[in-house]
Amino acid sequence: MRRVGIIGAGMTKFGENWEQGFRELVVEAGVKALTDAGISGDAIDAGYIGTMASGRLIGQEHIGGLIADYMGLNPIPITRVEGACASGSLALRQGVMAVASGMHDIVVVGGVEKMTELGVNTVSDILGGAGDQEWELFLGATFPAIYALMARRHMEDFGTTEEMMASVAVKNHKHGVHNKYAQFPREISMEQVLGSKMIADPLKVFDCSPITDGAAGVILAPMDMAESFTKKPIEITASAQASDTIALHSRQSLTGLRATQVAAKKAFEMAKVTPKDINLAEVHDCFTIAEIMAIEDIGFFEKGKGGQASLDGRTAIGAEIPINTSGGLKACGHPVGATGVKQAVECVWQLRGEAEGRQVKDANVALSHNVGGSGATAVVHIYKNQ
Amino acid sequence: MRRVGIIGAGMTKFGENWEQGFRELVVEAGVKALTDAGISGDAIDAGYIGTMASGRLIGQEHIGGLIADYMGLNPIPITRVEGACASGSLALRQGVMAVASGMHDIVVVGGVEKMTELGVNTVSDILGGAGDQEWELFLGATFPAIYALMARRHMEDFGTTEEMMASVAVKNHKHGVHNKYAQFPREISMEQVLGSKMIADPLKVFDCSPITDGAAGVILAPMDMAESFTKKPIEITASAQASDTIALHSRQSLTGLRATQVAAKKAFEMAKVTPKDINLAEVHDCFTIAEIMAIEDIGFFEKGKGGQASLDGRTAIGAEIPINTSGGLKACGHPVGATGVKQAVECVWQLRGEAEGRQVKDANVALSHNVGGSGATAVVHIYKNQ
Repeated sequence: MRRVGIIGAGMTKFGENWEQGFRELVVEAGVKALTDAGISGDAIDAGYIGTMASGRLIGQEHIGGLIADYMGLNPIPITRVEGACASGSLALRQGVMAVASGMHDIVVVGGVEKMTELGVNTVSDILGGAGDQEWELFLGATFPAIYALMARRHMEDFGTTEEMMASVAVKNHKHGVHNKYAQFPREISMEQVLGSKMIADPLKVFDCSPITDGAAGVILAPMDMAESFTKKPIEITASAQASDTIALHSRQSLTGLRATQVAAKKAFEMAKVTPKDINLAEVHDCFTIAEIMAIEDIGFFEKGKGGQASLDGRTAIGAEIPINTSGGLKACGHPVGATGVKQAVECVWQLRGEAEGRQVKDANVALSHNVGGSGATAVVHIYKNQ
Repeated sequence: MRRVGIIGAGMTKFGENWEQGFRELVVEAGVKALTDAGISGDAIDAGYIGTMASGRLIGQEHIGGLIADYMGLNPIPITRVEGACASGSLALRQGVMAVASGMHDIVVVGGVEKMTELGVNTVSDILGGAGDQEWELFLGATFPAIYALMARRHMEDFGTTEEMMASVAVKNHKHGVHNKYAQFPREISMEQVLGSKMIADPLKVFDCSPITDGAAGVILAPMDMAESFTKKPIEITASAQASDTIALHSRQSLTGLRATQVAAKKAFEMAKVTPKDINLAEVHDCFTIAEIMAIEDIGFFEKGKGGQASLDGRTAIGAEIPINTSGGLKACGHPVGATGVKQAVECVWQLRGEAEGRQVKDANVALSHNVGGSGATAVVHIYKNQ
């Protein structure tokens, strides 16, 4: 396999982007990534785009063809990949394979979702399609309810508290203040989180990531070509994906995601590093409990200790393992198909030393972790600067 | 790149499968492909699944995770790929890259669509999402209307007649009689086609492929491992994809699909063969005019001569280039995400000499051609027996 690197990265502002449709979001992120790489569309050989639910959200499928058209890239092949909230990372993974295989050299990878044109109840129903439609959503279990079950079990088994979960939101919003692309770049207090409206006990509104419009893009190249484009190529040293049951009720454990555990283990083997070698990680904090489970499942902390670690500030910038320096899904917002690619963009910026007010010192190795639904898909990438 | 071959193939009956939901269709096709390869799920390293519109058709996204679960394959990675009616071929292409890259060895590729649970008007609207939702479907242009525009232009420019188009339907139904998996395995006459109900002038109902449930699957392996599984591995010697504008109104020509032309040219280069070397082809006859354009765009006949060639019987089994030996989308039915994989299955059976009453003699090289929407995506694969 050829070694693969990222030579360009860019993203739109995440938020309620009333001035932009799906197409405009993609084009902005794609053009920013191309510009960052210092290339034009002519240099691109192929593309991948992650989006979860464009069919239901905007009535449009065939997203690869649409984007090839609106980016002015046809006739090159562009392919849509879908894996619920992990769609972006899956697109990145297909891009890595396309380059690694030698099938293509320069590949653009994008992620996008346009979510704010429909009402919140409709969007919740659509997002429920990431779980088991027949056995969960049809019976009323939307995603806050599913993650609330996991949170409650984690509290019962390990003594995790609502304060510990709230500390994740407080920390991610503190990080997000320094990210100009974040939907909610402002601090919130522990009291605000704990006092916010209950959504699905014990998860309150500030434990949940928001509904968001946005897109992000990266440009991939074989490492032996990457240096001709940029002095700071970021190598993707691991790309691993794993799956689990679609419904929560079939799992052996509710306090961790097996797909994350398997994907992380494989990623560490591929990159020949351990959790101790990671300088920062973007993890999938669709709910605060999800970040706590993620930092345990990846191996940064022992199972059951992630909540206390968060409360103790061990996951903040400047502490032992900075988690979600971008602000995470919580403060950045979560345009589901875009999130996985946005995580890669943040890792690139951190490893290049371009993360402005939220820069992690001496960042050499970064990890991103993206989850589909309640964990039927998990994807882990590891990145390294040269 | 490693050479990639198919070591197993299988499919469900195509039709109105009232006894099977989406999940059961996938499992049946997957198990048949595994059984054909003589392996169990334990041998599989990864999977790809093509499906166009599961979100709108059955309320379910996250199809990779769903299938990993229902096939009993988790925690291996399974990824959904979408490119409208070309979703199946795109899944096959990602599978080829996954094996070619060395990322995975044994890969299962599936295609599926469950379409008959909703009314025909709703399904037409959903299928319209394969075109330009904003500039075509929203203004009333469903797919028969879009292909009718192409047919009318082809008639004007080249003298193509309604009889020529009808001859495609007559021939594909004649082939389909010998395919036990076809939705409509019965002959129809020229008079029946010409006398059938007008859908979008000049396309009548028998010029159109039907709405169908179905699934198909193949198992891929590196060629250097393939012979340990089967004495008849079928090598995939080319996998090419191209794109074009999503809306018809942006195209320079309406009488051919540029994406097909580009993908076919690239596929012939990859496989180092010419159209004359192909012994049979499965092409995308979503409408009869689509087959006529396809056999011209691929290069079997000159532009403008495809209609006459069809009427003259030059595309039947036993003639110079047998087209759609399976019965095509027309007689087999067109479960959109499944079609591309079904085409691969037919090519495998033909190249192995297992195509029963529709066997092409001395078949050594086959081609499949799968189109998304009105041609914003086209995918061409070439297969060779050993």
